[in-house]
Amino acid sequence: MTAATTPGTLYLVPTPLDFGCDEAIPLTDVLPQATLAHAARLTHWICENAKSCRAYLKRVDALHPLAAPLQAQQITELPHAVHKQGDRAVHWDARPLLAPLLQGHDVGLVSEAGMPAVADPGSAVVRAAHDAGIAVVPLVGPVSILLALAASGLDGQHFTFNGYLPQGANEREQRIRELEARTLRHGATQLFIETPYRNAALWQALVRQLQPATRLARASGLTLAQAQVLCKPVHAWRTAPPAPPPPHVPTVFAIGS
Amino acid sequence: MTAATTPGTLYLVPTPLDFGCDEAIPLTDVLPQATLAHAARLTHWICENAKSCRAYLKRVDALHPLAAPLQAQQITELPHAVHKQGDRAVHWDARPLLAPLLQGHDVGLVSEAGMPAVADPGSAVVRAAHDAGIAVVPLVGPVSILLALAASGLDGQHFTFNGYLPQGANEREQRIRELEARTLRHGATQLFIETPYRNAALWQALVRQLQPATRLARASGLTLAQAQVLCKPVHAWRTAPPAPPPPHVPTVFAIGS
Repeated sequence: MTAATTPGTLYLVPTPLDFGCDEAIPLTDVLPQATLAHAARLTHWICENAKSCRAYLKRVDALHPLAAPLQAQQITELPHAVHKQGDRAVHWDARPLLAPLLQGHDVGLVSEAGMPAVADPGSAVVRAAHDAGIAVVPLVGPVSILLALAASGLDGQHFTFNGYLPQGANEREQRIRELEARTLRHGATQLFIETPYRNAALWQALVRQLQPATRLARASGLTLAQAQVLCKPVHAWRTAPPAPPPPHVPTVFAIGS
Repeated sequence: MTAATTPGTLYLVPTPLDFGCDEAIPLTDVLPQATLAHAARLTHWICENAKSCRAYLKRVDALHPLAAPLQAQQITELPHAVHKQGDRAVHWDARPLLAPLLQGHDVGLVSEAGMPAVADPGSAVVRAAHDAGIAVVPLVGPVSILLALAASGLDGQHFTFNGYLPQGANEREQRIRELEARTLRHGATQLFIETPYRNAALWQALVRQLQPATRLARASGLTLAQAQVLCKPVHAWRTAPPAPPPPHVPTVFAIGS
Protein backbone atom coordinates (compact mmCIF):
# COMPACT_ATOMS: atom_id res chain seq x y z
CA MET A 1 0.00 0.00 0.00
CA THR A 2 1.44 3.38 -0.97
CA ALA A 3 1.14 6.41 1.30
CA ALA A 4 -1.55 8.90 0.32
CA THR A 5 -0.10 11.67 -1.85
CA THR A 6 -1.26 15.26 -1.51
CA PRO A 7 -2.52 16.19 -4.97
CA GLY A 8 -0.91 19.04 -6.89
CA THR A 9 -2.62 22.29 -7.84
CA LEU A 10 -4.08 23.03 -11.25
CA TYR A 11 -2.88 26.49 -12.35
CA LEU A 12 -4.72 28.31 -15.12
CA VAL A 13 -1.87 30.04 -16.92
CA PRO A 14 -2.82 32.83 -19.32
CA THR A 15 -0.88 33.44 -22.54
CA PRO A 16 -0.50 36.62 -24.65
CA LEU A 17 -3.11 37.54 -27.27
CA ASP A 18 -0.61 37.72 -30.15
CA PHE A 19 -1.05 34.08 -31.21
CA GLY A 20 -1.26 33.88 -35.00
CA CYS A 21 -0.77 37.63 -35.36
CA ASP A 22 1.99 39.39 -37.26
CA GLU A 23 3.55 40.88 -34.17
CA ALA A 24 4.81 39.30 -30.97
CA ILE A 25 4.51 41.45 -27.88
CA PRO A 26 6.78 41.31 -24.83
CA LEU A 27 5.26 38.95 -22.25
CA THR A 28 5.83 41.64 -19.62
CA ASP A 29 3.25 43.81 -21.43
CA VAL A 30 0.43 41.46 -20.50
CA LEU A 31 1.60 39.03 -17.81
CA PRO A 32 2.42 40.03 -14.22
CA GLN A 33 5.76 38.90 -12.78
CA ALA A 34 3.92 36.45 -10.50
CA THR A 35 2.26 34.74 -13.48
CA LEU A 36 5.63 34.38 -15.25
CA ALA A 37 7.30 33.10 -12.06
CA HIS A 38 4.51 30.51 -11.53
CA ALA A 39 4.72 29.35 -15.15
CA ALA A 40 8.51 28.95 -14.89
CA ARG A 41 8.15 26.78 -11.81
CA LEU A 42 5.82 24.22 -13.45
CA THR A 43 6.98 21.08 -15.24
CA HIS A 44 3.65 19.53 -16.31
CA TRP A 45 1.27 21.07 -18.83
CA ILE A 46 -2.11 20.49 -20.45
CA CYS A 47 -2.63 22.45 -23.66
CA GLU A 48 -4.44 22.58 -26.98
CA ASN A 49 -1.26 22.32 -29.01
CA ALA A 50 2.12 21.13 -27.72
CA LYS A 51 4.07 23.14 -30.29
CA SER A 52 2.61 26.48 -29.25
CA CYS A 53 2.86 25.49 -25.58
CA ARG A 54 6.61 24.93 -26.07
CA ALA A 55 6.93 28.24 -27.94
CA TYR A 56 5.25 29.98 -25.01
CA LEU A 57 7.53 28.27 -22.46
CA LYS A 58 10.54 29.39 -24.51
CA ARG A 59 9.34 32.99 -24.18
CA VAL A 60 8.83 32.51 -20.43
CA ASP A 61 12.30 30.93 -20.09
CA ALA A 62 13.90 34.07 -21.55
CA LEU A 63 12.49 36.06 -18.60
CA HIS A 64 12.31 33.45 -15.82
CA PRO A 65 14.50 30.34 -16.27
CA LEU A 66 12.28 27.23 -16.34
CA ALA A 67 12.55 24.75 -13.45
CA ALA A 68 13.04 21.94 -16.01
CA PRO A 69 14.53 22.26 -19.49
CA LEU A 70 12.05 22.44 -22.36
CA GLN A 71 12.77 18.85 -23.47
CA ALA A 72 12.00 17.56 -19.97
CA GLN A 73 8.63 19.31 -19.66
CA GLN A 74 5.66 16.92 -19.64
CA ILE A 75 3.23 18.37 -22.16
CA THR A 76 -0.14 16.71 -22.80
CA GLU A 77 -2.56 17.87 -25.49
CA LEU A 78 -6.32 17.92 -25.03
CA PRO A 79 -7.90 15.18 -27.18
CA HIS A 80 -8.17 16.51 -30.75
CA ALA A 81 -11.80 15.46 -31.08
CA VAL A 82 -12.54 17.81 -28.20
CA HIS A 83 -10.90 21.02 -29.23
CA LYS A 84 -12.21 20.74 -32.76
CA GLN A 85 -15.80 21.01 -31.59
CA GLY A 86 -15.36 24.75 -31.49
CA ASP A 87 -18.29 26.59 -30.10
CA ARG A 88 -20.16 23.84 -28.31
CA ALA A 89 -19.76 23.28 -24.61
CA VAL A 90 -18.35 19.81 -24.50
CA HIS A 91 -18.62 17.52 -21.53
CA TRP A 92 -15.99 14.84 -21.97
CA ASP A 93 -14.15 12.71 -19.48
CA ALA A 94 -11.00 14.65 -18.63
CA ARG A 95 -10.10 12.47 -15.63
CA PRO A 96 -7.18 10.67 -17.36
CA LEU A 97 -5.46 14.05 -17.73
CA LEU A 98 -5.47 14.51 -13.96
CA ALA A 99 -2.96 11.68 -13.34
CA PRO A 100 0.08 13.94 -12.74
CA LEU A 101 -1.98 16.06 -10.33
CA LEU A 102 -3.03 12.98 -8.37
CA GLN A 103 0.65 11.98 -8.24
CA GLY A 104 1.39 15.28 -6.52
CA HIS A 105 2.61 17.43 -9.44
CA ASP A 106 1.37 20.96 -10.02
CA VAL A 107 0.05 21.28 -13.57
CA GLY A 108 -0.44 24.32 -15.82
CA LEU A 109 -3.42 24.57 -18.15
CA VAL A 110 -2.82 26.88 -21.13
CA SER A 111 -4.83 27.82 -24.19
CA GLU A 112 -3.65 29.19 -27.52
CA ALA A 113 -4.32 32.78 -26.46
CA GLY A 114 -5.56 34.47 -23.31
CA MET A 115 -7.23 32.85 -20.34
CA PRO A 116 -7.62 29.07 -20.45
CA ALA A 117 -11.15 27.65 -20.01
CA VAL A 118 -12.82 30.87 -21.22
CA ALA A 119 -14.07 30.53 -24.80
CA ASP A 120 -11.89 27.45 -25.26
CA PRO A 121 -12.13 23.71 -24.54
CA GLY A 122 -10.09 23.44 -21.32
CA SER A 123 -13.01 23.84 -18.94
CA ALA A 124 -13.66 20.07 -18.72
CA VAL A 125 -10.22 19.67 -17.13
CA VAL A 126 -11.06 22.28 -14.50
CA ARG A 127 -14.42 20.64 -13.82
CA ALA A 128 -12.80 17.23 -13.38
CA ALA A 129 -10.21 18.77 -11.03
CA HIS A 130 -12.96 20.16 -8.76
CA ASP A 131 -14.70 16.78 -8.71
CA ALA A 132 -11.40 15.13 -7.69
CA GLY A 133 -10.78 17.62 -4.88
CA ILE A 134 -7.84 19.25 -6.67
CA ALA A 135 -7.24 22.95 -5.92
CA VAL A 136 -7.60 25.30 -8.91
CA VAL A 137 -5.72 28.61 -9.02
CA PRO A 138 -6.29 31.10 -11.86
CA LEU A 139 -3.34 33.39 -12.64
CA VAL A 140 -3.77 36.93 -13.95
CA GLY A 141 -3.34 37.71 -17.64
CA PRO A 142 -5.11 39.22 -20.61
CA VAL A 143 -8.76 38.35 -21.33
CA SER A 144 -9.84 39.86 -24.62
CA ILE A 145 -13.57 39.64 -23.88
CA LEU A 146 -13.31 41.69 -20.69
CA LEU A 147 -10.80 44.19 -22.10
CA ALA A 148 -13.23 44.71 -24.99
CA LEU A 149 -16.20 45.12 -22.68
CA ALA A 150 -14.43 47.68 -20.47
CA ALA A 151 -13.12 49.63 -23.45
CA SER A 152 -16.51 49.69 -25.20
CA GLY A 153 -18.15 51.80 -22.49
CA LEU A 154 -21.24 49.58 -22.81
CA ASP A 155 -23.03 48.28 -19.70
CA GLY A 156 -20.42 46.38 -17.68
CA GLN A 157 -22.85 45.49 -14.89
CA HIS A 158 -24.94 43.13 -17.01
CA PHE A 159 -23.49 41.38 -20.01
CA THR A 160 -23.56 38.10 -21.89
CA PHE A 161 -20.80 36.46 -23.89
CA ASN A 162 -22.37 34.47 -26.72
CA GLY A 163 -19.37 32.77 -28.35
CA TYR A 164 -19.51 32.59 -32.14
CA LEU A 165 -22.50 33.61 -34.26
CA PRO A 166 -23.83 31.07 -36.81
CA GLN A 167 -22.03 31.02 -40.15
CA GLY A 168 -24.98 30.90 -42.55
CA ALA A 169 -26.25 34.36 -43.57
CA ASN A 170 -29.87 33.67 -42.61
CA GLU A 171 -29.11 32.07 -39.26
CA ARG A 172 -26.66 34.85 -38.50
CA GLU A 173 -29.25 37.52 -39.35
CA GLN A 174 -31.75 35.81 -37.07
CA ARG A 175 -29.20 35.60 -34.25
CA ILE A 176 -28.21 39.28 -34.58
CA ARG A 177 -31.90 40.16 -34.32
CA GLU A 178 -32.25 38.08 -31.15
CA LEU A 179 -29.18 39.62 -29.52
CA GLU A 180 -30.34 43.15 -30.33
CA ALA A 181 -33.82 42.41 -28.95
CA ARG A 182 -32.19 41.21 -25.72
CA THR A 183 -30.05 44.29 -25.34
CA LEU A 184 -32.98 46.60 -26.10
CA ARG A 185 -35.22 44.76 -23.61
CA HIS A 186 -32.80 44.34 -20.69
CA GLY A 187 -29.99 46.79 -21.48
CA ALA A 188 -27.44 44.00 -21.08
CA THR A 189 -24.40 44.15 -23.35
CA GLN A 190 -24.11 41.26 -25.83
CA LEU A 191 -20.58 40.18 -26.75
CA PHE A 192 -19.54 37.72 -29.44
CA ILE A 193 -16.55 36.74 -31.56
CA GLU A 194 -15.89 35.59 -35.11
CA THR A 195 -13.17 33.70 -36.94
CA PRO A 196 -10.86 36.58 -38.00
CA TYR A 197 -11.24 36.14 -41.78
CA ARG A 198 -15.01 36.65 -41.39
CA ASN A 199 -14.62 39.83 -39.28
CA ALA A 200 -15.36 42.21 -42.13
CA ALA A 201 -18.46 40.32 -43.28
CA LEU A 202 -19.86 40.23 -39.74
CA TRP A 203 -19.17 43.93 -39.20
CA GLN A 204 -20.97 44.84 -42.43
CA ALA A 205 -23.94 42.65 -41.52
CA LEU A 206 -24.16 44.33 -38.10
CA VAL A 207 -23.98 47.88 -39.49
CA ARG A 208 -26.61 47.03 -42.09
CA GLN A 209 -28.98 45.17 -39.85
CA LEU A 210 -29.00 46.78 -36.40
CA GLN A 211 -31.27 49.68 -35.49
CA PRO A 212 -29.75 53.18 -35.88
CA ALA A 213 -29.65 53.96 -32.14
CA THR A 214 -28.10 50.63 -31.08
CA ARG A 215 -24.48 51.04 -30.03
CA LEU A 216 -22.06 48.75 -31.87
CA ALA A 217 -18.50 48.14 -30.69
CA ARG A 218 -15.55 46.26 -32.05
CA ALA A 219 -12.21 45.72 -30.34
CA SER A 220 -9.42 44.40 -32.59
CA GLY A 221 -5.89 43.31 -31.75
CA LEU A 222 -6.23 44.09 -28.06
CA THR A 223 -2.89 44.50 -26.23
CA LEU A 224 -1.08 44.64 -29.62
CA ALA A 225 0.42 47.78 -31.15
CA GLN A 226 -2.39 47.77 -33.72
CA ALA A 227 -5.12 47.64 -31.04
CA GLN A 228 -8.26 49.59 -31.89
CA VAL A 229 -11.53 49.89 -30.00
CA LEU A 230 -14.50 51.58 -31.66
CA CYS A 231 -17.97 52.09 -30.20
CA LYS A 232 -20.70 54.34 -31.60
CA PRO A 233 -24.39 54.20 -32.44
CA VAL A 234 -25.01 52.36 -35.70
CA HIS A 235 -26.23 55.56 -37.44
CA ALA A 236 -22.72 57.03 -36.90
CA TRP A 237 -21.10 53.97 -38.52
CA ARG A 238 -23.49 54.31 -41.49
CA THR A 239 -22.65 58.01 -41.95
CA ALA A 240 -18.89 57.63 -41.59
CA PRO A 241 -17.94 53.96 -42.12
CA PRO A 242 -14.58 53.01 -40.61
CA ALA A 243 -12.20 50.67 -42.42
CA PRO A 244 -13.41 47.10 -41.90
CA PRO A 245 -11.74 45.14 -39.07
CA PRO A 246 -8.52 43.54 -40.38
CA PRO A 247 -8.94 39.91 -41.52
CA HIS A 248 -6.06 38.42 -39.48
CA VAL A 249 -6.64 40.11 -36.17
CA PRO A 250 -8.78 38.66 -33.36
CA THR A 251 -11.77 40.91 -32.82
CA VAL A 252 -14.45 41.02 -30.15
CA PHE A 253 -17.83 42.52 -31.11
CA ALA A 254 -20.41 43.98 -28.74
CA ILE A 255 -23.82 45.58 -28.97
CA GLY A 256 -25.59 47.60 -26.30
CA SER A 257 -28.00 50.43 -25.76
CA MET B 1 -8.46 81.13 -32.72
CA THR B 2 -6.39 78.42 -31.02
CA ALA B 3 -4.72 75.66 -32.96
CA ALA B 4 -6.52 72.31 -32.87
CA THR B 5 -5.12 70.07 -30.14
CA THR B 6 -4.78 66.34 -30.61
CA PRO B 7 -6.82 64.81 -27.81
CA GLY B 8 -5.17 62.55 -25.25
CA THR B 9 -5.90 58.86 -24.78
CA LEU B 10 -8.17 57.44 -22.09
CA TYR B 11 -6.38 54.53 -20.40
CA LEU B 12 -8.38 52.01 -18.40
CA VAL B 13 -5.98 51.23 -15.56
CA PRO B 14 -6.73 48.11 -13.49
CA THR B 15 -6.04 48.00 -9.76
CA PRO B 16 -5.42 45.00 -7.46
CA LEU B 17 -8.33 43.07 -5.92
CA ASP B 18 -7.16 43.56 -2.33
CA PHE B 19 -9.19 46.74 -1.76
CA GLY B 20 -10.84 46.63 1.68
CA CYS B 21 -9.25 43.23 2.43
CA ASP B 22 -6.98 42.40 5.33
CA GLU B 23 -3.97 41.73 3.15
CA ALA B 24 -2.24 43.86 0.54
CA ILE B 25 -0.65 41.94 -2.30
CA PRO B 26 2.41 43.05 -4.29
CA LEU B 27 1.24 44.93 -7.40
CA THR B 28 3.62 42.77 -9.44
CA ASP B 29 1.46 39.74 -8.57
CA VAL B 30 -1.44 41.05 -10.64
CA LEU B 31 -0.26 43.91 -12.86
CA PRO B 32 2.11 43.49 -15.82
CA GLN B 33 5.16 45.77 -16.01
CA ALA B 34 3.57 47.60 -18.95
CA THR B 35 0.46 48.45 -16.92
CA LEU B 36 2.60 49.80 -14.06
CA ALA B 37 4.77 51.79 -16.49
CA HIS B 38 1.68 53.31 -18.18
CA ALA B 39 0.16 54.22 -14.83
CA ALA B 40 3.39 55.90 -13.68
CA ARG B 41 3.47 58.03 -16.83
CA LEU B 42 -0.01 59.53 -16.35
CA THR B 43 -0.73 62.75 -14.46
CA HIS B 44 -4.54 63.00 -14.80
CA TRP B 45 -7.01 60.58 -13.24
CA ILE B 46 -10.72 59.87 -13.02
CA CYS B 47 -11.69 57.65 -10.10
CA GLU B 48 -14.45 56.70 -7.67
CA ASN B 49 -12.53 57.86 -4.62
CA ALA B 50 -9.53 60.23 -4.65
CA LYS B 51 -8.11 58.82 -1.45
CA SER B 52 -7.87 55.25 -2.71
CA CYS B 53 -6.61 56.51 -6.08
CA ARG B 54 -3.74 58.27 -4.29
CA ALA B 55 -3.04 55.15 -2.22
CA TYR B 56 -2.82 53.16 -5.44
CA LEU B 57 -0.49 55.69 -7.06
CA LYS B 58 1.75 55.53 -4.00
CA ARG B 59 2.05 51.77 -4.50
CA VAL B 60 2.82 52.29 -8.20
CA ASP B 61 5.41 54.97 -7.34
CA ALA B 62 7.33 52.47 -5.18
CA LEU B 63 7.88 50.32 -8.31
CA HIS B 64 7.86 52.91 -11.14
CA PRO B 65 8.54 56.52 -10.11
CA LEU B 66 5.53 58.68 -11.08
CA ALA B 67 5.99 61.30 -13.81
CA ALA B 68 4.53 63.93 -11.45
CA PRO B 69 4.65 63.91 -7.64
CA LEU B 70 1.51 62.71 -5.91
CA GLN B 71 0.50 66.25 -4.84
CA ALA B 72 0.69 67.44 -8.46
CA GLN B 73 -1.53 64.67 -9.86
CA GLN B 74 -4.89 65.91 -11.14
CA ILE B 75 -7.46 63.55 -9.60
CA THR B 76 -11.17 63.93 -10.35
CA GLU B 77 -13.85 61.84 -8.69
CA LEU B 78 -16.93 60.56 -10.49
CA PRO B 79 -20.01 62.45 -9.27
CA HIS B 80 -21.12 60.88 -5.97
CA ALA B 81 -24.74 60.62 -7.08
CA VAL B 82 -23.51 58.36 -9.86
CA HIS B 83 -21.41 55.84 -8.05
CA LYS B 84 -23.95 55.41 -5.30
CA GLN B 85 -26.52 54.03 -7.71
CA GLY B 86 -24.86 50.65 -7.35
CA ASP B 87 -26.22 48.04 -9.60
CA ARG B 88 -28.12 50.07 -12.13
CA ALA B 89 -26.57 50.98 -15.45
CA VAL B 90 -26.52 54.74 -15.29
CA HIS B 91 -26.42 57.00 -18.29
CA TRP B 92 -25.21 60.38 -17.11
CA ASP B 93 -23.42 63.18 -18.88
CA ALA B 94 -19.72 62.47 -18.37
CA ARG B 95 -18.58 65.02 -20.97
CA PRO B 96 -17.30 67.58 -18.42
CA LEU B 97 -14.80 64.97 -17.20
CA LEU B 98 -13.26 64.79 -20.68
CA ALA B 99 -11.81 68.34 -20.52
CA PRO B 100 -8.19 67.28 -19.80
CA LEU B 101 -8.38 64.74 -22.64
CA LEU B 102 -9.59 67.41 -25.07
CA GLN B 103 -6.70 69.61 -23.90
CA GLY B 104 -4.31 66.87 -24.99
CA HIS B 105 -3.61 65.06 -21.70
CA ASP B 106 -3.69 61.31 -21.37
CA VAL B 107 -6.05 60.33 -18.55
CA GLY B 108 -6.27 57.16 -16.44
CA LEU B 109 -9.63 55.77 -15.35
CA VAL B 110 -9.42 53.60 -12.22
CA SER B 111 -11.98 51.84 -10.07
CA GLU B 112 -11.72 50.71 -6.44
CA ALA B 113 -10.70 47.19 -7.44
CA GLY B 114 -10.05 45.40 -10.70
CA MET B 115 -10.93 46.55 -14.20
CA PRO B 116 -12.59 49.96 -14.48
CA ALA B 117 -15.97 50.12 -16.27
CA VAL B 118 -16.76 46.46 -15.54
CA ALA B 119 -19.28 46.11 -12.71
CA ASP B 120 -18.61 49.72 -11.71
CA PRO B 121 -19.82 53.18 -12.69
CA GLY B 122 -16.95 54.35 -14.95
CA SER B 123 -18.48 53.15 -18.21
CA ALA B 124 -20.22 56.47 -18.89
CA VAL B 125 -16.80 58.13 -19.13
CA VAL B 126 -15.67 55.56 -21.71
CA ARG B 127 -18.88 56.00 -23.67
CA ALA B 128 -18.47 59.80 -23.73
CA ALA B 129 -14.85 59.38 -24.85
CA HIS B 130 -15.92 57.29 -27.86
CA ASP B 131 -18.54 59.88 -28.77
CA ALA B 132 -15.88 62.62 -28.62
CA GLY B 133 -13.46 60.68 -30.83
CA ILE B 134 -11.02 60.01 -27.98
CA ALA B 135 -8.98 56.80 -28.20
CA VAL B 136 -9.60 54.28 -25.42
CA VAL B 137 -6.89 51.80 -24.41
CA PRO B 138 -7.58 49.08 -21.82
CA LEU B 139 -4.54 47.87 -19.86
CA VAL B 140 -4.20 44.32 -18.56
CA GLY B 141 -4.92 43.48 -14.93
CA PRO B 142 -7.05 41.26 -12.72
CA VAL B 143 -10.76 40.81 -13.46
CA SER B 144 -12.40 38.80 -10.70
CA ILE B 145 -15.43 37.78 -12.78
CA LEU B 146 -13.34 36.17 -15.49
CA LEU B 147 -10.85 34.58 -13.11
CA ALA B 148 -13.83 33.07 -11.28
CA LEU B 149 -15.41 31.84 -14.50
CA ALA B 150 -12.20 30.18 -15.72
CA ALA B 151 -11.50 28.60 -12.34
CA SER B 152 -15.06 27.27 -11.97
CA GLY B 153 -14.78 24.94 -14.95
CA LEU B 154 -18.32 25.94 -15.92
CA ASP B 155 -19.16 26.75 -19.55
CA GLY B 156 -16.80 29.56 -20.59
CA GLN B 157 -18.16 29.77 -24.13
CA HIS B 158 -21.56 31.12 -23.11
CA PHE B 159 -22.01 33.06 -19.90
CA THR B 160 -23.86 35.98 -18.39
CA PHE B 161 -22.77 38.32 -15.65
CA ASN B 162 -25.84 39.47 -13.73
CA GLY B 163 -24.41 41.97 -11.23
CA TYR B 164 -26.00 41.86 -7.77
CA LEU B 165 -29.02 39.73 -6.85
CA PRO B 166 -31.97 41.49 -5.15
CA GLN B 167 -31.66 41.94 -1.37
CA GLY B 168 -35.14 40.88 -0.27
CA ALA B 169 -35.44 37.14 0.44
CA ASN B 170 -38.47 36.63 -1.81
CA GLU B 171 -37.11 38.62 -4.74
CA ARG B 172 -33.77 36.87 -4.36
CA GLU B 173 -35.41 33.44 -4.34
CA GLN B 174 -37.31 34.34 -7.49
CA ARG B 175 -34.15 35.59 -9.19
CA ILE B 176 -32.16 32.46 -8.27
CA ARG B 177 -34.97 30.40 -9.81
CA GLU B 178 -34.80 32.45 -13.03
CA LEU B 179 -31.03 32.14 -13.30
CA GLU B 180 -31.14 28.39 -12.73
CA ALA B 181 -33.88 28.00 -15.34
CA ARG B 182 -31.71 29.90 -17.81
CA THR B 183 -28.65 27.75 -17.19
CA LEU B 184 -30.69 24.53 -17.40
CA ARG B 185 -32.34 25.67 -20.65
CA HIS B 186 -29.30 27.08 -22.48
CA GLY B 187 -26.34 25.66 -20.56
CA ALA B 188 -24.93 29.18 -20.18
CA THR B 189 -23.09 29.92 -16.94
CA GLN B 190 -24.73 32.58 -14.75
CA LEU B 191 -22.38 34.73 -12.66
CA PHE B 192 -23.29 37.21 -9.94
CA ILE B 193 -21.81 38.99 -6.94
CA GLU B 194 -22.95 40.05 -3.48
CA THR B 195 -21.91 42.63 -0.91
CA PRO B 196 -19.31 40.64 1.12
CA TYR B 197 -21.18 40.67 4.44
CA ARG B 198 -24.12 38.94 2.74
CA ASN B 199 -21.93 36.23 1.12
CA ALA B 200 -22.82 33.54 3.66
CA ALA B 201 -26.58 34.20 3.45
CA LEU B 202 -26.51 34.05 -0.34
CA TRP B 203 -24.46 30.83 -0.33
CA GLN B 204 -26.90 29.17 2.06
CA ALA B 205 -29.88 30.27 -0.04
CA LEU B 206 -28.24 28.86 -3.16
CA VAL B 207 -27.40 25.50 -1.56
CA ARG B 208 -30.92 25.23 -0.19
CA GLN B 209 -32.77 26.33 -3.27
CA LEU B 210 -30.98 25.03 -6.36
CA GLN B 211 -31.63 21.60 -7.86
CA PRO B 212 -29.27 18.81 -6.70
CA ALA B 213 -27.54 18.36 -10.07
CA THR B 214 -26.95 22.07 -10.72
CA ARG B 215 -23.29 22.99 -10.32
CA LEU B 216 -22.63 25.84 -7.88
CA ALA B 217 -19.32 27.70 -7.71
CA ARG B 218 -17.91 30.36 -5.48
CA ALA B 219 -14.56 32.12 -5.88
CA SER B 220 -13.42 34.15 -2.85
CA GLY B 221 -10.44 36.42 -2.41
CA LEU B 222 -9.11 35.81 -5.91
CA THR B 223 -5.41 36.69 -6.36
CA LEU B 224 -5.05 36.94 -2.54
CA ALA B 225 -3.22 34.40 -0.34
CA GLN B 226 -6.62 33.28 1.00
CA ALA B 227 -8.03 32.66 -2.50
CA GLN B 228 -10.40 29.71 -2.74
CA VAL B 229 -12.44 28.45 -5.66
CA LEU B 230 -15.05 25.74 -5.10
CA CYS B 231 -17.35 24.19 -7.70
CA LYS B 232 -19.47 21.08 -7.27
CA PRO B 233 -23.02 19.89 -7.85
CA VAL B 234 -25.38 21.19 -5.18
CA HIS B 235 -25.98 17.66 -3.81
CA ALA B 236 -22.27 17.51 -2.91
CA TRP B 237 -22.50 20.81 -1.01
CA ARG B 238 -25.53 19.49 0.88
CA THR B 239 -23.72 16.27 1.86
CA ALA B 240 -20.46 17.94 2.89
CA PRO B 241 -21.09 21.65 3.50
CA PRO B 242 -17.93 23.77 3.25
CA ALA B 243 -17.32 26.67 5.65
CA PRO B 244 -19.39 29.65 4.50
CA PRO B 245 -17.57 32.23 2.36
CA PRO B 246 -15.81 34.74 4.64
CA PRO B 247 -17.80 37.93 5.29
CA HIS B 248 -15.07 40.45 4.36
CA VAL B 249 -13.78 38.88 1.19
CA PRO B 250 -15.10 39.71 -2.29
CA THR B 251 -16.73 36.60 -3.74
CA VAL B 252 -18.03 35.77 -7.20
CA PHE B 253 -20.80 33.16 -7.44
CA ALA B 254 -21.67 31.08 -10.50
CA ILE B 255 -24.16 28.40 -11.42
CA GLY B 256 -24.02 26.09 -14.41
CA SER B 257 -24.96 22.66 -15.63
